[in-house]
Amino acid sequence: MTTASKTILLTGSAGFIGSHLTERLLADGHTVIGVDNYISGQPANTALFADHPNFRFIRADVSEGIPYKAGAFGGQTLDHVLHFASPASPPHYQQFPIETLMVGAQGTQHALELAHAHGAPLLLASTSEVYGDPQVHPQPESYWGHVNPNGLRSCYDEAKRYAEAITFAYHRHHGVDTRVIRIFNTYGPRMRPDDGRVVTNLIGQALAGGPLTVYGDGQQTRSFQYVTDLVDGIVALMDLPEAAAVHDPVNLGNPDEYTILQFAQVIRELIDPGLAIIHEPLPADDPRQRKPDITRARALLGWVPTVDLHTGLRRTVEEFRRQAAVPATLPQQMPVAAE
Amino acid sequence: MTTASKTILLTGSAGFIGSHLTERLLADGHTVIGVDNYISGQPANTALFADHPNFRFIRADVSEGIPYKAGAFGGQTLDHVLHFASPASPPHYQQFPIETLMVGAQGTQHALELAHAHGAPLLLASTSEVYGDPQVHPQPESYWGHVNPNGLRSCYDEAKRYAEAITFAYHRHHGVDTRVIRIFNTYGPRMRPDDGRVVTNLIGQALAGGPLTVYGDGQQTRSFQYVTDLVDGIVALMDLPEAAAVHDPVNLGNPDEYTILQFAQVIRELIDPGLAIIHEPLPADDPRQRKPDITRARALLGWVPTVDLHTGLRRTVEEFRRQAAVPATLPQQMPVAAE
Repeated sequence: MTTASKTILLTGSAGFIGSHLTERLLADGHTVIGVDNYISGQPANTALFADHPNFRFIRADVSEGIPYKAGAFGGQTLDHVLHFASPASPPHYQQFPIETLMVGAQGTQHALELAHAHGAPLLLASTSEVYGDPQVHPQPESYWGHVNPNGLRSCYDEAKRYAEAITFAYHRHHGVDTRVIRIFNTYGPRMRPDDGRVVTNLIGQALAGGPLTVYGDGQQTRSFQYVTDLVDGIVALMDLPEAAAVHDPVNLGNPDEYTILQFAQVIRELIDPGLAIIHEPLPADDPRQRKPDITRARALLGWVPTVDLHTGLRRTVEEFRRQAAVPATLPQQMPVAAE
Repeated sequence: MTTASKTILLTGSAGFIGSHLTERLLADGHTVIGVDNYISGQPANTALFADHPNFRFIRADVSEGIPYKAGAFGGQTLDHVLHFASPASPPHYQQFPIETLMVGAQGTQHALELAHAHGAPLLLASTSEVYGDPQVHPQPESYWGHVNPNGLRSCYDEAKRYAEAITFAYHRHHGVDTRVIRIFNTYGPRMRPDDGRVVTNLIGQALAGGPLTVYGDGQQTRSFQYVTDLVDGIVALMDLPEAAAVHDPVNLGNPDEYTILQFAQVIRELIDPGLAIIHEPLPADDPRQRKPDITRARALLGWVPTVDLHTGLRRTVEEFRRQAAVPATLPQQMPVAAE
């Protein structure tokens, strides 16, 4: 580590991505103050770091406020605020549409106010969903998107577009040093088994010994990045000194496309080559193809994804196997700091 | 009046449109509880109704909450909540970007919660700005729009898209009877002289005896509806019994297009035919042509605009003349109810 140790507040620390980011920031020697309300994050992801001397946790709904005060936990002012809290998979955000809207609006504003008060940069986790059902492929950051403002997905898509808008308003109006990433499909260990998207669905089916379900002919494509690639990009943007270019949104995703059938075949190969692959009709609203244009991330951060699909899926499957073997040993709660 | 007298809470009552809606609802025999914080609304618009027995006013920032309780003002529960509060002209919302974002998110949510608590329908004033810089002409409600999520106008455009999304979330998730109108360019008496858009600019120049400024050759077109046409559409949608179709967004605007030069010529003719019209270069971000497709409003409400441009401009000019003649006689404040 060449960078100095920093104090970083991370909302959504108990989420899939939040947990990997926590792990990396702690490994880099930083102090991490995680915040989560477990609406979609998992207590097990907090428990992972319970014994780490540089990890603190606040159980709170950031839409109501972020109860961190300079002076708590030894008096650190914050060096960074990273706002990652939000349900992110369709089954989760459609179960909690109003909470999802609120964490995009009030939650983002509370994170911005906290960053502003501490003179710290704010990094917003936005999403490729701001592009909606894109009419431009691949999507550069300059593309304005194609989003239904009041459809079933709008509770997430519009919340994130609003989060970007208010982040830019705080930058322009209050001079907060803001950064915005747009996260494309990401997979890896610690995804919730009930995430509801293709990778976890297929791994779950394979580990259960059942056939793997592929919708349609399986020739539709997806681009998935392995979670440590994403974390590399986040840290690189966080570490960048302030300059005009750092405030613009930055796509972080893997532009390599694979067919759904390829996903199923790799997973089958990793788990049990004897499993059947069955085909079912394509759902009406399915395949929204998305693929990032990562020109900006490459130029600004020198970032490119490095983990190939086979390697990433192997690590993910290993972790799912381990979890399936020892579910009861994971603590469901850990002590919670009041603030 | 054939409809029964109702108790209606209207946020943004001191705005241009809010004041006309108040006037109409009072004339129809309803009780109106106006709410405004005067961030862009005008105390003079509250003072207009100060002596009306069925008008009440609460000075409050609806982003912080709507301090109305059943039991206040004689115990009425609300029959309707109409959410019109927001800065709406570019100079105003760019002066107050964060307040504009907040009234779209927290303000709309407070209005929805109030409607939910009273079992009342909520009508949201959305905007043609949700279509952004449209790539479809004219714009039907099914068009998803073309909005820059983090440009200078995003504090307004994305706030309104979010307002629609959370309105639909309350309808789907909590069963609130919600209605959404998308208001296109509207003009009429009581626009703020510093509104910053073409009608008020041209009238102001003409009344000041100066030349009228037309940007470019003036052949770019605009569609403007007269404010009483808009109010007719709002009342028609408010009065409609609940049915599936009423929850979808409804465009309210005048599809008749006029060139900017035609506007200038009519205004000159009304004020002083001897005035010069001068041309200046078109600003870079100017002309964003928008024109409503009002098929839905016509089918659902039997609504079409009826006031032609000459009539509407004549009434507007008369009012501006009157205001210019007697500015000091308008009270700046009226007594304010605590809740």
